[in-house]
Amino acid sequence: MNFSVLLIHCPDQPGLVFKITQVAYRHNLNIISNGEFVERNSNHFFMRTAFSGSFDEAIFLSELQAALPPEAVVKLSLRKKRDLCILVTKEHHCISDLLVRHAFGELDANIKCVISNYSDLERLTSKFDVPYHHVAHENKTREAHEEEILHILDHYNPEFLVLAKYMRILTPAFIQRYPNRIINIHHSFLPAFAGANPYTQAYDRGVKIIGATAHFVNEQLDEGPIIAQSIIPVAHTHSAKEMAQAGRDVEKIVLARSLKLVVHDQLFVHRNKTIIFD
Amino acid sequence: MNFSVLLIHCPDQPGLVFKITQVAYRHNLNIISNGEFVERNSNHFFMRTAFSGSFDEAIFLSELQAALPPEAVVKLSLRKKRDLCILVTKEHHCISDLLVRHAFGELDANIKCVISNYSDLERLTSKFDVPYHHVAHENKTREAHEEEILHILDHYNPEFLVLAKYMRILTPAFIQRYPNRIINIHHSFLPAFAGANPYTQAYDRGVKIIGATAHFVNEQLDEGPIIAQSIIPVAHTHSAKEMAQAGRDVEKIVLARSLKLVVHDQLFVHRNKTIIFD
Amino acid sequence: MNFSVLLIHCPDQPGLVFKITQVAYRHNLNIISNGEFVERNSNHFFMRTAFSGSFDEAIFLSELQAALPPEAVVKLSLRKKRDLCILVTKEHHCISDLLVRHAFGELDANIKCVISNYSDLERLTSKFDVPYHHVAHENKTREAHEEEILHILDHYNPEFLVLAKYMRILTPAFIQRYPNRIINIHHSFLPAFAGANPYTQAYDRGVKIIGATAHFVNEQLDEGPIIAQSIIPVAHTHSAKEMAQAGRDVEKIVLARSLKLVVHDQLFVHRNKTIIFD
Amino acid sequence: MNFSVLLIHCPDQPGLVFKITQVAYRHNLNIISNGEFVERNSNHFFMRTAFSGSFDEAIFLSELQAALPPEAVVKLSLRKKRDLCILVTKEHHCISDLLVRHAFGELDANIKCVISNYSDLERLTSKFDVPYHHVAHENKTREAHEEEILHILDHYNPEFLVLAKYMRILTPAFIQRYPNRIINIHHSFLPAFAGANPYTQAYDRGVKIIGATAHFVNEQLDEGPIIAQSIIPVAHTHSAKEMAQAGRDVEKIVLARSLKLVVHDQLFVHRNKTIIFD
Repeated sequence: MNFSVLLIHCPDQPGLVFKITQVAYRHNLNIISNGEFVERNSNHFFMRTAFSGSFDEAIFLSELQAALPPEAVVKLSLRKKRDLCILVTKEHHCISDLLVRHAFGELDANIKCVISNYSDLERLTSKFDVPYHHVAHENKTREAHEEEILHILDHYNPEFLVLAKYMRILTPAFIQRYPNRIINIHHSFLPAFAGANPYTQAYDRGVKIIGATAHFVNEQLDEGPIIAQSIIPVAHTHSAKEMAQAGRDVEKIVLARSLKLVVHDQLFVHRNKTIIFD
Repeated sequence: MNFSVLLIHCPDQPGLVFKITQVAYRHNLNIISNGEFVERNSNHFFMRTAFSGSFDEAIFLSELQAALPPEAVVKLSLRKKRDLCILVTKEHHCISDLLVRHAFGELDANIKCVISNYSDLERLTSKFDVPYHHVAHENKTREAHEEEILHILDHYNPEFLVLAKYMRILTPAFIQRYPNRIINIHHSFLPAFAGANPYTQAYDRGVKIIGATAHFVNEQLDEGPIIAQSIIPVAHTHSAKEMAQAGRDVEKIVLARSLKLVVHDQLFVHRNKTIIFD
Repeated sequence: MNFSVLLIHCPDQPGLVFKITQVAYRHNLNIISNGEFVERNSNHFFMRTAFSGSFDEAIFLSELQAALPPEAVVKLSLRKKRDLCILVTKEHHCISDLLVRHAFGELDANIKCVISNYSDLERLTSKFDVPYHHVAHENKTREAHEEEILHILDHYNPEFLVLAKYMRILTPAFIQRYPNRIINIHHSFLPAFAGANPYTQAYDRGVKIIGATAHFVNEQLDEGPIIAQSIIPVAHTHSAKEMAQAGRDVEKIVLARSLKLVVHDQLFVHRNKTIIFD
Repeated sequence: MNFSVLLIHCPDQPGLVFKITQVAYRHNLNIISNGEFVERNSNHFFMRTAFSGSFDEAIFLSELQAALPPEAVVKLSLRKKRDLCILVTKEHHCISDLLVRHAFGELDANIKCVISNYSDLERLTSKFDVPYHHVAHENKTREAHEEEILHILDHYNPEFLVLAKYMRILTPAFIQRYPNRIINIHHSFLPAFAGANPYTQAYDRGVKIIGATAHFVNEQLDEGPIIAQSIIPVAHTHSAKEMAQAGRDVEKIVLARSLKLVVHDQLFVHRNKTIIFD
């Protein structure tokens, strides 16, 4: 279906929904779905409206801005497939799931390229006719390595970066180039395990549940706003290797689900959380 | 928090949100949360608004009706604890969970009485200072038995009836007295098992998951609109008795969660489904 | 790791574990894991032993048979990758997941070929260098169509058939050729929906949970012994199409998990259930 | 059913199952279920056997010890209801769930008493005819307060202590009095949140899942061997208070499930994990 999405957020005040829908009504827009949410701790208003109809974009936006308080952030997102670049290291489970969905038109986004610090996944990627860029990190500073990646990204100009098991820490400078536009997936545990070999730790502790968390990347590594989470049950009879396999299974599903929310403009990032209209 | 809930539904048409929020804005209402949903198959519009502020109820409603198409159903629900009557047979797990939540102020509703066709749960109920009515069904027609129950219900005039493991089939005449106001809980399986001893069937088939479904009761027994569902994993090593215990655990949590949605006016019933604003 | 699996089942009687482990001890076998289970309703004994060590297979088995009651079924399964043939129709999600796992050595089995009544998945399959046999069913009797498939299967001689969304009903004659050796995956609901368009029915009923069941195929279609099940939550805001996507996500994970149990000899089929040693 | 449970663990070596079952066979014991597990990292053997039949306990145990390596730990557990004492603070959800199950004979254990540092739950407890001991902690050293509790516990001599939301940290000296005999329940998150107000942190981070973990208490607070875990989904629309309610719901079910495993001798504690025979 061909529709546009309007995303508005600002400090809450009376009449916001009325003022917004008044403008939409004047423009004869057909609202397909409308969601609002006021985050109580910050008293901040969020509204997502999906609508169809033809309208003059510039006039519509200027009328909206005039009707809303000056701090309001208004984003009009015309419905089209978003461009993604995907960063990987050596693990295949997330990238192969994304490539398959992409090949069958289920991703609702364009995978412009895959970039990796290793060549391991080149053969897989080429099966799906997606460009693969191997940017080795050996003997390079972190900054120099990222510079090469950014150079490639500049060429594709993606809207979002997906870290599909990219196992290198990004510098703050890199992250700032894609604010709230980098999606990462990582395993999660109850309780959390810090440090190396988390599945060995999970095995040693006898956890009963393995989880996965998809989140936006900000400067707090692995602590950005959560987009989606899920879990899978395990048992003490499972080896650390079997637990890792369970972890991979849940990671790929959670990453795909989070991308659906992202590319359909179904969320806002607010402070360190997401407001999701699902 | 002291707030009111406005529930509106009608066939969809352009401008509904605008027209509704315009009236609310004129009355200086402070909208706390607002949800809309258009069910696409039926092109039907639903809106739930929670708001605070003082207003003239009659004027507000008449202005709303004037602004909306004549088919619109408008329900204004002033925030207060709802009255419930609970029907049980012999199983204690759901009723004891509800009585405990009620005793500690977590149910956000008043349990006016418990009615049962057996006396087994009288001792438990009396611990919590809730009236218990034992209405034996032996040697009575179904209609005569229900008549006695309805007589008791008339006294309490509850807004909702909760079937907390009430193991008798209600007549259509009874159900029509409480349209979409009777909540039932029952076990669910993947796949479903018809007939007697479902847990024995589940054991014999080796199911891996036991579920529970809370739903409104309509004339299709166990097939009314679903309010909430959840599951719990089981294994072939579990006896049918252990599976039944797992089923009881998930039933009581699902029933409590569905009552929260019901007493907080968080749902609409539309055809055979619920539209939930959670 | 290189190990063998011994699977024994028979009516229960005292001393079975002792008698079996006595033989194993005499042969200096190193038991890696041992599981027993007595199904109480049928009083039937099951034992699965994984062990390493070198031994004379014929002597070992004859000693075991001598020690056990005559009805005992003893299966010695030397550790090797099992051969699978996969049947599909048009949906790609399960077959692509299996092909990817296979390509990366995660399936612990050999996919010998993919057989389909359509050509849709040929391009995908060929990316992974697996033979694809298109056996159209148009203008053929069910028996004639199956005959062609059986002819292909005879060539590959697989140990197990996997129905990875094969949407045709198999005849009893076909099923009897692969008793408890055909694995199927299908969506599951709480409650179950019979007939066509199950996701539309699920949408119309407002289900909150979509499940998947992997099972062995016997002559009761979709009612054979369950191997694995899982679920994924959904909401009324999801379209039937989104529910179907959620269903596909859970189906592929459940099918892969069930294949792991099958190819590692981790289960017995007993009457209409499975006894699983996980 | 009247049966005994034999729990044996020792470093793994060939023939252990054979030697154990040989002794059982000589004593004409009827094995109801038998589970073994070898933990591979430590090469440690665990066996749990449930059996019926009459036997001379002393002879049986001395024959077992003679057949097994000297390091073997053998525990024979005659089937009887275990005695529990429960420690609480102010939250009612876990203790009320346990009291109800106890009252209806579902706990398979005796609740000898409830001990609390507050009087809040006395009224509830007395409804169920269980002694309540209020041991205020104000103006006492931690050691003096624990001394009073231990004095009460000495009177009841429980096999297990259950911390059903007991919100005080126990001293190592106290814990050593009940090694692997204290069960605790606490909320869990993906990721974990340290410090005060975890539900506020969970709300601020927008977590999608709330979990609960039941574990044995050792000297690493909240980091002892995990017995059971489960989760419940939440959304950004839920307030921190609603998330806390979800947390309470999952906590009480997980605690009850873990107690079932404990009182039925279904687990071993090994290093920092549990080996569970469920």
